[in-house]
Amino acid sequence: MKNIRIDPGWPRYSRFTFAPAIQRGKLLFISGMTATDEKTKAVVGKGDIVAQTRKIYEKMREVLEAAGATFDNVVMTRDYITTTAGYRDTAEVRREVFGENFPASTGVIVQRLLREEALIEIEAVAVLD
Amino acid sequence: MKNIRIDPGWPRYSRFTFAPAIQRGKLLFISGMTATDEKTKAVVGKGDIVAQTRKIYEKMREVLEAAGATFDNVVMTRDYITTTAGYRDTAEVRREVFGENFPASTGVIVQRLLREEALIEIEAVAVLD
Amino acid sequence: MKNIRIDPGWPRYSRFTFAPAIQRGKLLFISGMTATDEKTKAVVGKGDIVAQTRKIYEKMREVLEAAGATFDNVVMTRDYITTTAGYRDTAEVRREVFGENFPASTGVIVQRLLREEALIEIEAVAVLD
Repeated sequence: MKNIRIDPGWPRYSRFTFAPAIQRGKLLFISGMTATDEKTKAVVGKGDIVAQTRKIYEKMREVLEAAGATFDNVVMTRDYITTTAGYRDTAEVRREVFGENFPASTGVIVQRLLREEALIEIEAVAVLD
Repeated sequence: MKNIRIDPGWPRYSRFTFAPAIQRGKLLFISGMTATDEKTKAVVGKGDIVAQTRKIYEKMREVLEAAGATFDNVVMTRDYITTTAGYRDTAEVRREVFGENFPASTGVIVQRLLREEALIEIEAVAVLD
Repeated sequence: MKNIRIDPGWPRYSRFTFAPAIQRGKLLFISGMTATDEKTKAVVGKGDIVAQTRKIYEKMREVLEAAGATFDNVVMTRDYITTTAGYRDTAEVRREVFGENFPASTGVIVQRLLREEALIEIEAVAVLD
């Protein structure tokens, strides 16, 4: 068994010292992601935590698909946020994404995120079928 | 294999977009929990991080039991705290709970927690027998 | 299946209420570690996040070896940092350690770390062969 790098074809990650996600056996670990557009490299939804959350889940969908998985495989998410303003409204994005099959989750307010302009960073663990 | 929602019967979670815990195969992911009483919805042990820690582990015991597990199944905990005042004394709670079978653990001091009045939030991963 | 405490022989941990790492089945959970020298108990590389990162990965190597694993088994790391000054340069340490086999990773800036003088704390998950 070896680490399988999961990359939806995001050039930015080729110079990073971590993978977008790693699959090993049935486990999939998805790195913390911000709402950075992988083509323009700009943060999408500046000042809008709901828009940023939606962008992150779009990117997470790409990662999951690259591993042959869906949101039904996600068992845990962690939200690292820099503001609570609007955070409650991100629940709607989670409803769109997960339907009723909600994962476990932790949310904490951190000092800052590495990517400037990012209001939220989300990581996830999935178990493949 | 599908996600199994673990819920000790906590009505508050029915409107949340995450589960108290998710079991999938032998893995159990427990969401970050504060010392919020699930009946009164109030934080227990205001200003007292030891009392809050004890309440969280009482809730964790309920979650573990709902999954047919015990504290012996816990492999990792993460403490997110907002103050170090009294934190050292929470070790006593861990001794009561885990005996000598301590899990791996990380503790970090965060900016704030989502639940006001919460001084500590704990999440956990368990592996079922 | 039971929790196996992984300890490279670090006396400091005997009074902690958590293990350096826990192995259970093929999973290995490594507690968040700072650049604390396990013999002198002093933080190595004061003010130098790169030196601290290198020390942490030396300790992680000891933990992995005690579990019969290598860095190729690491699937996820989490960096909790208190400053971004010099953080970019820690990538070089990751290249030395992981070669091209990078794990998934999340990095967040926290308020403080429990160990004073620590600029970075790293935890990891590994999957054994």
